[in-house]
Amino acid sequence: MATPSSKRPAPTDLIPNEEDRQRAVIDAVLPAVDAGRFAVKAIAGEPMRIQANCFTDGHDVLRVMLLWRPEAQATMQEVEMALDSNDEWFASFTPEAPGRYFYSVAAWVDHFESWRHELTRRVDEEDIRIAALVGADLIDDAAKRAKATDQTELMAWARQLRQSGGEAQALKALALDEARAAVARRHPDRQLATQFPIELPLVADRERARFSTWYELFPRSTSSEPGQHGSFKDVEQRLPYVAEMGFDVLYFPPIHPIGREKRKGRNNALTTEPGDVGSPWAIGALEGGHKDVLPELGTMEDFRSLVSKAKDLGLEIALDIAFQCAPDHPEVKAHPEWFRWRPDGTVQYAENPPKKYQDIYPFNFETYDWRALWQELKSVFDHWIAQGVTIFRVDNPHTKAFPFWEWAITAIKREHPEVLFLAEAFTRPKVMHRLAKLGYSQSYTYFTWRHTKQELTEYFTELSQGPGKDYFRPNVWPNTPDILSEHLHAGGRPIFALRLVLAATLSSSYGLYGPAYELLDNVPRSNGSEEYLNSEKYQLRHWGDWDVARPDSLAQFIAKVNAIRRANPALQSNDSLRFFSTDNDQLIAYSKQTDKQTADGDNLILSIVNLDPHNPQSGWVTLDAEALKLSPTSHYEVHDLLSDQRFTWQGLRNFVILDPRQTPAHVFRLRKRVQDERHFDNFA
Amino acid sequence: MATPSSKRPAPTDLIPNEEDRQRAVIDAVLPAVDAGRFAVKAIAGEPMRIQANCFTDGHDVLRVMLLWRPEAQATMQEVEMALDSNDEWFASFTPEAPGRYFYSVAAWVDHFESWRHELTRRVDEEDIRIAALVGADLIDDAAKRAKATDQTELMAWARQLRQSGGEAQALKALALDEARAAVARRHPDRQLATQFPIELPLVADRERARFSTWYELFPRSTSSEPGQHGSFKDVEQRLPYVAEMGFDVLYFPPIHPIGREKRKGRNNALTTEPGDVGSPWAIGALEGGHKDVLPELGTMEDFRSLVSKAKDLGLEIALDIAFQCAPDHPEVKAHPEWFRWRPDGTVQYAENPPKKYQDIYPFNFETYDWRALWQELKSVFDHWIAQGVTIFRVDNPHTKAFPFWEWAITAIKREHPEVLFLAEAFTRPKVMHRLAKLGYSQSYTYFTWRHTKQELTEYFTELSQGPGKDYFRPNVWPNTPDILSEHLHAGGRPIFALRLVLAATLSSSYGLYGPAYELLDNVPRSNGSEEYLNSEKYQLRHWGDWDVARPDSLAQFIAKVNAIRRANPALQSNDSLRFFSTDNDQLIAYSKQTDKQTADGDNLILSIVNLDPHNPQSGWVTLDAEALKLSPTSHYEVHDLLSDQRFTWQGLRNFVILDPRQTPAHVFRLRKRVQDERHFDNFA
Repeated sequence: MATPSSKRPAPTDLIPNEEDRQRAVIDAVLPAVDAGRFAVKAIAGEPMRIQANCFTDGHDVLRVMLLWRPEAQATMQEVEMALDSNDEWFASFTPEAPGRYFYSVAAWVDHFESWRHELTRRVDEEDIRIAALVGADLIDDAAKRAKATDQTELMAWARQLRQSGGEAQALKALALDEARAAVARRHPDRQLATQFPIELPLVADRERARFSTWYELFPRSTSSEPGQHGSFKDVEQRLPYVAEMGFDVLYFPPIHPIGREKRKGRNNALTTEPGDVGSPWAIGALEGGHKDVLPELGTMEDFRSLVSKAKDLGLEIALDIAFQCAPDHPEVKAHPEWFRWRPDGTVQYAENPPKKYQDIYPFNFETYDWRALWQELKSVFDHWIAQGVTIFRVDNPHTKAFPFWEWAITAIKREHPEVLFLAEAFTRPKVMHRLAKLGYSQSYTYFTWRHTKQELTEYFTELSQGPGKDYFRPNVWPNTPDILSEHLHAGGRPIFALRLVLAATLSSSYGLYGPAYELLDNVPRSNGSEEYLNSEKYQLRHWGDWDVARPDSLAQFIAKVNAIRRANPALQSNDSLRFFSTDNDQLIAYSKQTDKQTADGDNLILSIVNLDPHNPQSGWVTLDAEALKLSPTSHYEVHDLLSDQRFTWQGLRNFVILDPRQTPAHVFRLRKRVQDERHFDNFA
Repeated sequence: MATPSSKRPAPTDLIPNEEDRQRAVIDAVLPAVDAGRFAVKAIAGEPMRIQANCFTDGHDVLRVMLLWRPEAQATMQEVEMALDSNDEWFASFTPEAPGRYFYSVAAWVDHFESWRHELTRRVDEEDIRIAALVGADLIDDAAKRAKATDQTELMAWARQLRQSGGEAQALKALALDEARAAVARRHPDRQLATQFPIELPLVADRERARFSTWYELFPRSTSSEPGQHGSFKDVEQRLPYVAEMGFDVLYFPPIHPIGREKRKGRNNALTTEPGDVGSPWAIGALEGGHKDVLPELGTMEDFRSLVSKAKDLGLEIALDIAFQCAPDHPEVKAHPEWFRWRPDGTVQYAENPPKKYQDIYPFNFETYDWRALWQELKSVFDHWIAQGVTIFRVDNPHTKAFPFWEWAITAIKREHPEVLFLAEAFTRPKVMHRLAKLGYSQSYTYFTWRHTKQELTEYFTELSQGPGKDYFRPNVWPNTPDILSEHLHAGGRPIFALRLVLAATLSSSYGLYGPAYELLDNVPRSNGSEEYLNSEKYQLRHWGDWDVARPDSLAQFIAKVNAIRRANPALQSNDSLRFFSTDNDQLIAYSKQTDKQTADGDNLILSIVNLDPHNPQSGWVTLDAEALKLSPTSHYEVHDLLSDQRFTWQGLRNFVILDPRQTPAHVFRLRKRVQDERHFDNFA
């Protein structure tokens, strides 16, 4: 296809190009990421609405076609686009299966439609007679492009228009005959059609890319015996606990052999004590590397068994892929050319300032042997896909060469379009966005550090409405093994509950690191640190008897919140997120809604969260009539899905009070009453 | 160059491309119009600031180069870009002469700079010793790329770093030596440099494209004798009048022979009376077509004389180019194939609904002979350029094929980069923007129909800050021969004065149609019509003795406003436009400022206009401390350039009163006092 930059930046002569005769203009096709350099993201089975800004000189009528194809098909399918207003045309197509698609737009000045359009406003009898003759010629042209009965019908129509010597109004009616126009429309003259010069790429993922609920645990901490190293078999015992909380992704830190050289001790100590198990991210030892399993966890067969049992409970296992090596990783010896050796024969350990990873060597992505290195890294994904893994969380992708990710993810998804990638990049905004553009299905966010009403409102408005909405899918985490954010240190159970509700209702994908979260672990390694004391990153932890919930465990509450997410499609995507004003800065209010029908009507969820974990807060919430299609005077039911209480609200302004000792939030389902339906229509 | 869409939308195999080894990422280069499909507009001789969003994986240091070249040069010049914040890099280049330019960006991971950067934070002595050896290797590599003294110097430096067995701090100082680093920097390793895949086009125009003041008149109405047909010689007599008012462009409706067939009578009548002169836009008759002059106006030599005399007074003549033909235009007979003939042997006259141009045939841009037609149309511009014309106002460009404009303007400006084009397209926003993208230097706007504070604020914010700011240069007109907008019908002299001030201070380019404007012609053809009664479009007008100004003529006021524009560079561009709140909806306040130095300091103009032509209005104006770099407590002088009054204002909130019977506006020059300078610095 021609390209934006090659289109006449510098004409080399004075002869116009053949395509300059095309009068239809396609000024823009949306959505598009960087003018088609990267793929727009979509969900398989869901219609994708495409906009094209099209017009032509003067007053002729256009026809505009959306063209689309799956990657494997050479020919485009067509959908006629319809003019809305302001020269904006729309049509949808549905990428049925996960995979890569391309779309573009074609438009042409349609002389037949222009003739009909002009004829409708003709009143002068002589004008109508001339117009009938003009139309007869156009219809004859269409007949030449047609076959069989269409051809016969069109020729007859043209003949009638020419021969009718009669009354002008009857002639006009004959010329405007809708059934015959439909026949002519099937045979347009597309010789001078304009084609948008770019085939825009789109990646359709399965639904979990849009709606997912993640639970992270360390398999080595799952033994029921204190001090025992947990195994995949132990994890199997914990699966019902995780599934019953309503999670659908169970994610493990790296499960590979752990290096012994430079192994870290407890609490990130530079020296070990006997029995220290080291960091799972210091990958590789005598027993193997990225394609192997730490023997203490079990065998590859045990792992496959776990994947399968998890699947039976609706849980997908997500693996952490961290492309780095402990000094005793087998590849350090086998492929010294993949590392950057210094003149003293050492390798500079990895850093992510201020963090130092003395137990880790980074790969040198610029090595002369880079192609072999890249193939090897990609084959790590292939290996685990072969074991049944379909979701990967990638560790610090922003410290590996960016072009690698585009190459690897594109190649992997081509063979395995169901595979999803989560980018663990807590870094600068443009870097995070680039990773999403390169192919990451989901991205970690700054949610962990956004606490106030203003911060949350600005950030989630940007995430749901900003330019990233076409390619950056947020996955928000109230905690991770690396981040016990400072506001969790105090505030007790209420702060854990309110941050959970925020994550679960603001974002259609969220995750938490447990059982630290539901068991309210809030002890930092030192005052003000984001590191956990006695972090599982460096040692085994025993979490007691998870299954019999402690009285203060959040497990039941999490299960309720996740059940609400499953039952309410509004909470399963982010596009519709809207914030509402409250007169109390500790109260944040927002809605999500969907056009999708549930068993009992369309779905509209209004969440109101008390951001203060210490005190009851009350205030007036003012809803937006237009956003919610509410009449300012209507009565409607709000059903708190957390407490199961029902209230009748009236109008746009209502009072709420939330006591953190009882509940951090209202998660209301809003139901409009039948007698008010007409009001809503007026607002629609 | 590679293109956005061709960059791996569908990898055909599993081998990474050679360019994937390039670790530097250039995520965006700005400004860019449609990803480089169209040119950004700039002014010759003025620096153009380019932004590139660049980063790499990990913590290595980048070097980023802005590349640019004039169209005629094959090789790029380079300017080093500097990192500001948020991964945004900046540099400027100055297109010295009008013409087309291209720019792009290259970036690479610089191992030498990365080494230095890392070394600065090393404290461990062993680390420093290893780092010195690493650096010595990098410096040796640089030496291999260098020659002569640079090579010698670098080799010596590397040797010292290797041989120094001494104290670590001295070694670190030697390694960080700034003078030697400067030498190494001249010889970077650019083997793995990333090049942005698009060469972005830029069109540099001369200054008049940014700052111009237009006066439109009908040459045929310039005779000093009532009822006499005016001529170019008569126009010559009027030149001092126009020049003294401070205009720099004098623009004429078409000056060609006027068709006799279907000629329009006075007030757009379909039949003529004896002596009716017809519409100048009904181009072509026995005497010639688009390259000829209406004999009553004079000869081609007279025209050239007029162009020359105007130039002596600082006035450029702009011609109206209207690509359409009266039925008796010579080309209708000579090239019937350039028109769309209907089966009855007629051509449908031109329309721009609801307007009908019964005296005009449109060209058929789709004709099989289109290339010859296009060449002929382009040659019309060439013809008038040869007569000394350098500015064209193009009539209804949106009713001619869009690709024609891109081809014609690009080709013409290639030979004559000084030529400017103004698009007279009063139509839908996307259509107007497309014409600007295709190459029009300036564009008519909706100003004529924007009256309220809210309308003006929204529209001029969009014009100066919206996406069009890189390519759409507004030219605003309070009236045109086609538009006596309804709000001018009443309000007398004050409405004419206030609309003039708005046009002249909101937009760096504006124009008016005179002497109708300064002589306050406000009589519509019918109630509520935008057409003038007895419009010059269809008849001669006699404007009395222009030179001796009527007591109510706005000529003196216009002269003063235009003098203020010339003396104040702030009013000569639009980028800095900012609106301020007032507590009275009839008072609009806005500023423009520039970094350019005038004889007496930097230039900051604050305009406050009373939008009510009938009543005095008063209120409080609240300035923006940040936008104006004012301290909330500072004292400063405001000098009203219209009245020459000076006031001392304090702080951000000040009171104004404006009586339309005296003046419609304050046009303040703001001068910060010396003693406050430190305050401003703090705000800067």
